[in-house]
Amino acid sequence: MAGGSAGAGRSVTSRALAVLGAFDASSPRLTLTEIAERSGTPLTTAHRLLAELTAWGALSRRADGRYEIGRRLWDLGLLAPVQLELRQLAAPFLLDVHTATRDTVHLAVREGAHALYVERISGRESVPVVSQVGSRLPLHATGVGKVLLAAAPDEVVAQVLAAPERATRHTVVDPALLSRELAEIRRRGWARTAEEMSLGTASVAVPVRVERAGGPVVAAALGIVVPSHRRDLARLAPVLEVAARGIGRALARTEPFR
Amino acid sequence: MAGGSAGAGRSVTSRALAVLGAFDASSPRLTLTEIAERSGTPLTTAHRLLAELTAWGALSRRADGRYEIGRRLWDLGLLAPVQLELRQLAAPFLLDVHTATRDTVHLAVREGAHALYVERISGRESVPVVSQVGSRLPLHATGVGKVLLAAAPDEVVAQVLAAPERATRHTVVDPALLSRELAEIRRRGWARTAEEMSLGTASVAVPVRVERAGGPVVAAALGIVVPSHRRDLARLAPVLEVAARGIGRALARTEPFR
Repeated sequence: MAGGSAGAGRSVTSRALAVLGAFDASSPRLTLTEIAERSGTPLTTAHRLLAELTAWGALSRRADGRYEIGRRLWDLGLLAPVQLELRQLAAPFLLDVHTATRDTVHLAVREGAHALYVERISGRESVPVVSQVGSRLPLHATGVGKVLLAAAPDEVVAQVLAAPERATRHTVVDPALLSRELAEIRRRGWARTAEEMSLGTASVAVPVRVERAGGPVVAAALGIVVPSHRRDLARLAPVLEVAARGIGRALARTEPFR
Repeated sequence: MAGGSAGAGRSVTSRALAVLGAFDASSPRLTLTEIAERSGTPLTTAHRLLAELTAWGALSRRADGRYEIGRRLWDLGLLAPVQLELRQLAAPFLLDVHTATRDTVHLAVREGAHALYVERISGRESVPVVSQVGSRLPLHATGVGKVLLAAAPDEVVAQVLAAPERATRHTVVDPALLSRELAEIRRRGWARTAEEMSLGTASVAVPVRVERAGGPVVAAALGIVVPSHRRDLARLAPVLEVAARGIGRALARTEPFR
């Protein structure tokens, strides 16, 4: 990259980060060769970086020789504000909703054009859902996503409406229809979906509003997923609203998270 | 550190890791100066490394100028086996116990001479507890810790019994008494504590046994925390045992985690 020590330093740090970046939810365990390939690192360099990252505890090596994320990175991840200032604080409220309904409850924040799921409570009798903590799903196809999209800046709405992906045959991808739906969500205060992200499930979601100096902001969305044959979706909105207000008040007492 | 490029590389990676290692649960937000001091890095080097780590998303910079763990490290942490192969799998069983009891339920694994808490479900009506996900507490003073200690290798037991710290005036620190208690836990199959970690709470815990090629191993401990005035502690053991067996069977179907 460069001859100077600053240049070499930048290059080494970025290579170490590229090695970490080789891991993702679809590939949480990787061989040396896979890591070298995915990170664009020469094999010998990758081998040396892996030794350092493993010694520190950022990665660990399994009995089968593959590498995986180590406990020390898990520890550090627990310090991220999305965990420390949102997930921990909101978890008891999600539990309240789950206790009252037995359905899968989750909390998401907007990250660009996606809903990032930061907490989920799901019993063994709850309907199976695709989202897990850390998942990103399209804003236009999920309940929490629609709520976050309805509160998003115009340019985000324009970006999503320009090319909404189809997840199932029921996903609403017509920009005019979506636009009307967002207006309805803003007016009514909650969103619903029916088999738009996965067949067999429906969802209801409400915004988590937090009072800030400049007025209320939608900081997150709280949603519930139920079997699509359930006829009582509208009954779930007030349950979610009570919990969302509790989360909003708790958040208002903290610094803004990101 | 060294003149050669390999030496410089090692040094740079270890410095970047030292910057990350400056953050911990008691100091999740740090200024540039604090990071430089805590990591033993010259200010200008720390500044440059922070810029790189922030650009990649490992850290992020708050409005007040302090740094904190970024969402990308949170993402990576979610891929750690303790999360992916234990926490996610066990969570529905913890929820079952919480639903049946309304008390705080948690799951811990042994990490050296400490119990590492990997999952916790706690309602707003549950008794306040000191442990959070990611907490480490002494093995001899907690319910889950005693269960893990009872199953630990002799050298770990000897290490803990050599210098058991006192957390409250009720903590059992007499080695002979502790040793007898561990034998009783092995015989009876569950542990109990009364105000040994924090005043006002009692706990019950059971081992999570997994069938492995070499025979059953205690992979984790499942515990419940209740107000210390409760008289029905013994009643809670079978509830935990049912859930622990469910977790054990689910774990047996996966690769061993670490």
